[in-house]
Amino acid sequence: MNDDLKIFCGNSNPALADAICEHLDMERSPMEISRFSNDNLFVQIQDNVRERDVFLVQSFTHPVSDHLMEMMIAIDALRSASARRITAVIPYYSYARSDKKDAPRISITGRLIADLLQTAGADRVLTMDLHADQVHGFFKVPVDHLTAIPTIASHFQKYYDLSKMVAVATDAGGAKRAGRFSERLNIPMAIIDKRRVSDTEVKQGHVVGDVANKEAIIFEDEISTGGTLLSTVDTLVAAGVSKVHAGAVHPVFCGPAVERLKNSALGSVVVTNTVDIPDNKMFPSLTRLSVAPLFAEAIRRIHTGESVGALFR
Amino acid sequence: MNDDLKIFCGNSNPALADAICEHLDMERSPMEISRFSNDNLFVQIQDNVRERDVFLVQSFTHPVSDHLMEMMIAIDALRSASARRITAVIPYYSYARSDKKDAPRISITGRLIADLLQTAGADRVLTMDLHADQVHGFFKVPVDHLTAIPTIASHFQKYYDLSKMVAVATDAGGAKRAGRFSERLNIPMAIIDKRRVSDTEVKQGHVVGDVANKEAIIFEDEISTGGTLLSTVDTLVAAGVSKVHAGAVHPVFCGPAVERLKNSALGSVVVTNTVDIPDNKMFPSLTRLSVAPLFAEAIRRIHTGESVGALFR
Amino acid sequence: MNDDLKIFCGNSNPALADAICEHLDMERSPMEISRFSNDNLFVQIQDNVRERDVFLVQSFTHPVSDHLMEMMIAIDALRSASARRITAVIPYYSYARSDKKDAPRISITGRLIADLLQTAGADRVLTMDLHADQVHGFFKVPVDHLTAIPTIASHFQKYYDLSKMVAVATDAGGAKRAGRFSERLNIPMAIIDKRRVSDTEVKQGHVVGDVANKEAIIFEDEISTGGTLLSTVDTLVAAGVSKVHAGAVHPVFCGPAVERLKNSALGSVVVTNTVDIPDNKMFPSLTRLSVAPLFAEAIRRIHTGESVGALFR
Amino acid sequence: MNDDLKIFCGNSNPALADAICEHLDMERSPMEISRFSNDNLFVQIQDNVRERDVFLVQSFTHPVSDHLMEMMIAIDALRSASARRITAVIPYYSYARSDKKDAPRISITGRLIADLLQTAGADRVLTMDLHADQVHGFFKVPVDHLTAIPTIASHFQKYYDLSKMVAVATDAGGAKRAGRFSERLNIPMAIIDKRRVSDTEVKQGHVVGDVANKEAIIFEDEISTGGTLLSTVDTLVAAGVSKVHAGAVHPVFCGPAVERLKNSALGSVVVTNTVDIPDNKMFPSLTRLSVAPLFAEAIRRIHTGESVGALFR
Amino acid sequence: MNDDLKIFCGNSNPALADAICEHLDMERSPMEISRFSNDNLFVQIQDNVRERDVFLVQSFTHPVSDHLMEMMIAIDALRSASARRITAVIPYYSYARSDKKDAPRISITGRLIADLLQTAGADRVLTMDLHADQVHGFFKVPVDHLTAIPTIASHFQKYYDLSKMVAVATDAGGAKRAGRFSERLNIPMAIIDKRRVSDTEVKQGHVVGDVANKEAIIFEDEISTGGTLLSTVDTLVAAGVSKVHAGAVHPVFCGPAVERLKNSALGSVVVTNTVDIPDNKMFPSLTRLSVAPLFAEAIRRIHTGESVGALFR
Amino acid sequence: MNDDLKIFCGNSNPALADAICEHLDMERSPMEISRFSNDNLFVQIQDNVRERDVFLVQSFTHPVSDHLMEMMIAIDALRSASARRITAVIPYYSYARSDKKDAPRISITGRLIADLLQTAGADRVLTMDLHADQVHGFFKVPVDHLTAIPTIASHFQKYYDLSKMVAVATDAGGAKRAGRFSERLNIPMAIIDKRRVSDTEVKQGHVVGDVANKEAIIFEDEISTGGTLLSTVDTLVAAGVSKVHAGAVHPVFCGPAVERLKNSALGSVVVTNTVDIPDNKMFPSLTRLSVAPLFAEAIRRIHTGESVGALFR
Repeated sequence: MNDDLKIFCGNSNPALADAICEHLDMERSPMEISRFSNDNLFVQIQDNVRERDVFLVQSFTHPVSDHLMEMMIAIDALRSASARRITAVIPYYSYARSDKKDAPRISITGRLIADLLQTAGADRVLTMDLHADQVHGFFKVPVDHLTAIPTIASHFQKYYDLSKMVAVATDAGGAKRAGRFSERLNIPMAIIDKRRVSDTEVKQGHVVGDVANKEAIIFEDEISTGGTLLSTVDTLVAAGVSKVHAGAVHPVFCGPAVERLKNSALGSVVVTNTVDIPDNKMFPSLTRLSVAPLFAEAIRRIHTGESVGALFR
Repeated sequence: MNDDLKIFCGNSNPALADAICEHLDMERSPMEISRFSNDNLFVQIQDNVRERDVFLVQSFTHPVSDHLMEMMIAIDALRSASARRITAVIPYYSYARSDKKDAPRISITGRLIADLLQTAGADRVLTMDLHADQVHGFFKVPVDHLTAIPTIASHFQKYYDLSKMVAVATDAGGAKRAGRFSERLNIPMAIIDKRRVSDTEVKQGHVVGDVANKEAIIFEDEISTGGTLLSTVDTLVAAGVSKVHAGAVHPVFCGPAVERLKNSALGSVVVTNTVDIPDNKMFPSLTRLSVAPLFAEAIRRIHTGESVGALFR
Repeated sequence: MNDDLKIFCGNSNPALADAICEHLDMERSPMEISRFSNDNLFVQIQDNVRERDVFLVQSFTHPVSDHLMEMMIAIDALRSASARRITAVIPYYSYARSDKKDAPRISITGRLIADLLQTAGADRVLTMDLHADQVHGFFKVPVDHLTAIPTIASHFQKYYDLSKMVAVATDAGGAKRAGRFSERLNIPMAIIDKRRVSDTEVKQGHVVGDVANKEAIIFEDEISTGGTLLSTVDTLVAAGVSKVHAGAVHPVFCGPAVERLKNSALGSVVVTNTVDIPDNKMFPSLTRLSVAPLFAEAIRRIHTGESVGALFR
Repeated sequence: MNDDLKIFCGNSNPALADAICEHLDMERSPMEISRFSNDNLFVQIQDNVRERDVFLVQSFTHPVSDHLMEMMIAIDALRSASARRITAVIPYYSYARSDKKDAPRISITGRLIADLLQTAGADRVLTMDLHADQVHGFFKVPVDHLTAIPTIASHFQKYYDLSKMVAVATDAGGAKRAGRFSERLNIPMAIIDKRRVSDTEVKQGHVVGDVANKEAIIFEDEISTGGTLLSTVDTLVAAGVSKVHAGAVHPVFCGPAVERLKNSALGSVVVTNTVDIPDNKMFPSLTRLSVAPLFAEAIRRIHTGESVGALFR
Repeated sequence: MNDDLKIFCGNSNPALADAICEHLDMERSPMEISRFSNDNLFVQIQDNVRERDVFLVQSFTHPVSDHLMEMMIAIDALRSASARRITAVIPYYSYARSDKKDAPRISITGRLIADLLQTAGADRVLTMDLHADQVHGFFKVPVDHLTAIPTIASHFQKYYDLSKMVAVATDAGGAKRAGRFSERLNIPMAIIDKRRVSDTEVKQGHVVGDVANKEAIIFEDEISTGGTLLSTVDTLVAAGVSKVHAGAVHPVFCGPAVERLKNSALGSVVVTNTVDIPDNKMFPSLTRLSVAPLFAEAIRRIHTGESVGALFR
Repeated sequence: MNDDLKIFCGNSNPALADAICEHLDMERSPMEISRFSNDNLFVQIQDNVRERDVFLVQSFTHPVSDHLMEMMIAIDALRSASARRITAVIPYYSYARSDKKDAPRISITGRLIADLLQTAGADRVLTMDLHADQVHGFFKVPVDHLTAIPTIASHFQKYYDLSKMVAVATDAGGAKRAGRFSERLNIPMAIIDKRRVSDTEVKQGHVVGDVANKEAIIFEDEISTGGTLLSTVDTLVAAGVSKVHAGAVHPVFCGPAVERLKNSALGSVVVTNTVDIPDNKMFPSLTRLSVAPLFAEAIRRIHTGESVGALFR
């Protein structure tokens, strides 16, 4: 790519940013991120960005507040350094989960963050598998919304016998996502129906759909502590499923997640690299697929003005 | 209510506005809506609104563009006539259906309309059962989002034997809504899984969940032409369901809807009055529940500063 | 023109859009406009517009609300599809007539629509003969304001004996426009002075200026029902005018207009094609002049950065 | 009026502000306006305005730039001092004259100033007889637009024989204003039609309408140098008018105006006090009518939330 | 205070918020702050705030990003819960230090945070001793800017012999602040002049002003690691100062600060409670003065509309 | 430079604009500025600026309000004439002095003007030696902030013996600027400490720092009436300084400034040409250094997208 395109990244996932740059056959531009003694963040762009087309890669992973502030301060620095266009590349937009007001007097933080990023100076957004498709509409600036569902589906298609497979959503809210995944693989689907027993207790869900004597792929957008996933495994096994796999786009893997998954009855766990997994957290049944080629191609097309929608056909 | 509160309405549903006013024991304020010979709309507020707390009731029903423009012009007139606060009361927000970008180069019109209403001068919004909860986040101004699910559920609880009943969503996207409805009634749920055969053809869905020998309530947010509803009845009957009812918040009832429903195998059809149904479109199996008390109470609380969230407990 | 320029149009006047494209020797880009069963409009841009310079042609003709919503949804779709610049080409901006607050508690809708178009994402506007010059100032974005007065004046200059001709405004508000037209033709002017008899009745106007034994051209911005025009003919004839013609930019022609004009005592009626006139509405004394060359040249200059003001010299 | 209402004024017309306060039976609040040695303006509000309803009176008279900056700095100071609402009271809004783009590459400054006042923090505007009604629409904030036409018309009605009187506009652009004035007095109207001879020369206009052997009142929004007025007197006299008077809202009276008017053939010159006239500029044929009662009543109604439109009935 | 006033706080300094509430004789309103497993923050307002006047207390202390995000999410929740007015009370605004662009391609983060807070929905700000007075101007919303300089000065006046005392700024940038402090105590001042030896090394500063055989109070806005403070002590001792004290508004006290100060040659260290100091970090020579009375009085006046400026006279 | 770059200027300092153009080897583009008889300003851009990169040079010198309005109206005209980018080049931004709220109920006018310029349509700002570095942060648009300190320092380095020289700030607020100047020359610094005796009287300051038997350069950002400067000379002479020079960026020179300086005990007075000095105000001890090369180079780099920060290394 030419000199007009610049790619920077924050501290959340430099490995992915580097992989993207490699696919584009270019160097990542340097940016210093440090802290003052009073814990204020400091960001300095270390490359001339005047009138350049800049992409800034940052996932909203732990510590989320710091990674978010890094991104906003960097965008402000880029803007005031006269970048021509700033695209916030957010492979994992954690706050997409705060997308509705399901309790009184709370914030729809997914919308708030969208507004804050625009105030900071983001001209557009490139992201992947938002928790709900509607979150796209939280942004006023143009968004390119990629999906890793075909990537993960292809993996299962290649390496697994799908004849007795069923795709499972962990709750009713995930039915649409699991449906899309199952349609891609041409397999049936099921969902877990969970009910609230009291204000503080959610009882074990039960399976809606036909799963007995089948093999299952639980499909989610993200795996966080793994708690929901493992309780779903239990529910499925109790319902007669012979083997359970898991597919998810964002491997948030926090707290006891890795230990739990490693020691679970799960067959394969297939994720992407939107969230960085340190080497010491990798385990044998875990497969990590790279979304770098997809992001690289999207960036190339955004930069040159080619259709991005065509990426999905 | 005191003189500080004023309620106006557009042409879409004056019956509902009047019912709300009756519950609040007040008169609806007059507003002229007419057309110039060049088809420009003309709106004149016919009551002093200076420093008043104004609520404007309008559903986005056929003709949607006219009803939308009526609302925006009326809001602009109210704003420039110095209303202290303008609440757009939108019992049926039709464009909530355009909430995601599921095809290239389309508009998320649900967000666009939210921005337009704010530009016109809406200070807040009061609405009911948006197609997806996330649409709430399309608005920057405060939104009170009411639901008629308890109202409809109560009706079934009162008049029907629920012991063999199952709630059904017409597709995976509606699973969450049907789940909420079924949880309220403490009955199981099922969903229809539809697959795309080719770019132009969607094949008949099949049922996910246990429905044989049961009675079913198909639950949706809106009934438009009734096409989806009736094909779901067929699918359910084929799957062994003995009797099928339908519940929906918004009776859009366009085109052949009334004829279809009247002549269908459906037991009961239970809806609300967010969309006005002319007398000549009523039919015996149709039950219309009034949401006027709910809207009236919400308006009263917004006006006096009482908690609206408490309405839902 | 090169590939960077794209022209789209809504449903109001595709004939004009096509004529413009022909003058620019390019194809019009396709855009799907349809309706969902709940009457929601749906717009899909069917050409890649990333980083392109896009012009969208739409007149605000009957049904005005639909044509306005079409335009705003299309602009939103273009914006979110990453068009570099979007020019709203509005040959006939009907709401320019709602340009002042001449009654209490009404909307200056000409300004409201300007704000809504900007919220939707219009970067600039190209329009023609706004009802008042001041409406230009309702827009914050740059506006190129064309006029068809020279086109219509040239037609009369070419085909009519101007030695005994006088230009007439139908009321005091139109004096400036008629003055400009008469100056171009170097003929005298007159105006009709109308007085309000009571709140509901406007008495027949009387002529201010010297018209006896002359031939007259009534000049207006738009002809809607033709009512004003025909009562002016009567007034002029009563004042001794021998023959009356009419010139107007926008042939809105609603309701009984065509029948009235066809059967009137009017000599010639000269208009442009900013508003489309179906073939079956054409009549012998009607002359339609094309403004397509003017719009095409303005678009070319806007696109290439040449002076548009020079168009008027 | 209660303590919640505060009235301030800039340097342009304290006499009018004091007269308004007197009508409201209240004291004007003090505000210091001074200059630093580098010519920066300095404004200090010298009364507590927290949560108060503040009106700031300033006409845009010579030196216009200073009076405009005074107003904007004062509004900013009021806003940051936590005034609840700030109404910019602008009896004479000079830049209303820059209301259209009648030459290439100029500013519609009437709109620009509206935007600047809103940026400074004006919540609403109260003004009088804008050059064109459309200028109202340049403001997004609510505007109350008063008129002194009835006040001036009443004066002529009381003291003059109207039986042979005609109202005259100095050009076609003023036809509407003169028409409104003449309708109020129930007298006929005429206009001066001016033509451009070349780019640099405007030839003497000629009269459109019947004026011979009549008495005339030239009616304008403002009298600036008096040049247009006096050349109109000449035109009318040449056309056989026996006596000429003048009525205008805003006595800008700049340069040679007073000398010219004093020594002219004009009968009476009737103006208001929207622009202050120093005592030494008064002359015998000049009558100054006070608009203070009108502004005072409008301020009272805006403050208490009564209808202002009712003022005009 | 009445029921219309509500005070909330984030996690940074609940002790100060409680002390403020105690001075106002009211209860602090509850607010839940927690984290989802993916590290997203969650805030729920647990009191009805409709149409209430809300103050939210939060200092930007370690971890700054989390405390900032807490505040913005809470403001968004308050706004969407229909609070009438939201005042962000920020006793310590850490990012005020990022107030200029003293290196290429950095962010003036003090301004960015101001914009973000306003986007989140802050209607006004109440803060104390910003690093530079100009930071006040980074906010568009009204700011009340308190100072603890009189509080700290009074303490020294009461308990120390000022006859041989000099106030010292640790660098030229702090000269104004130290000057204000010294003027209040009527003692002379001095500053430390630091020079850059190379890009990476700053040499020990030397004293500008007369300090030999005097006692000194180093006065700063904040004490962070204490490094600058201690090197200034060394410089002063080398210049012949007999005893050195320190005064500062914000005790940031990070890293080795407490250990360093405790074991230093410093006489007294006088700070306020804008930043919370845990009990185990208190040490004998440290005096903590409470600014709660000052904040409480300011909140009372803002709430009731009394002059806050009068607080400083 | 190519045809895409256009430079205009207002009436404040055409000499500087011409010098900048000469350095860029291009012609200045013409712009008419005149006044209507009612004192309204009129600006017409007399060159095609469509899609051009436009720089508009204007210093805020006496008469400041007029020069400010000229700039805003010109920016509005450029914007509406479709300039691609408008850079406000403000060599002397007088209102930077109004940068804090050091008295109750005043405006931070430096921020207000920044907002107004952005509302008018400025896309970026190029300025020099703002009174405080923080004023940079008053702008949301990108700012390039040049400094003439190295230019002035170099002059002293070249022509003066610096071995016994000290740099002096006229008050504590200027310490930072004088420190920067003194560090550049590698000479010591001192400041004048001024105290308020009563509300109306400021007593003569006294020197902080070692100046006896030295030569001094008083360094300031601007010289206005020269009053502060001359009283500082007196203070320094009284403190034993042998000879006093003055350096300042902006020669505002108002009122008695020139007479005072000409007749003072000052050795040399070194300033720049950010503010124009008419020939008849030049005097022998005055040296004027041109900043045109600096501005020209900055404009060139901004236009071509080269790093401007590199200018300062």
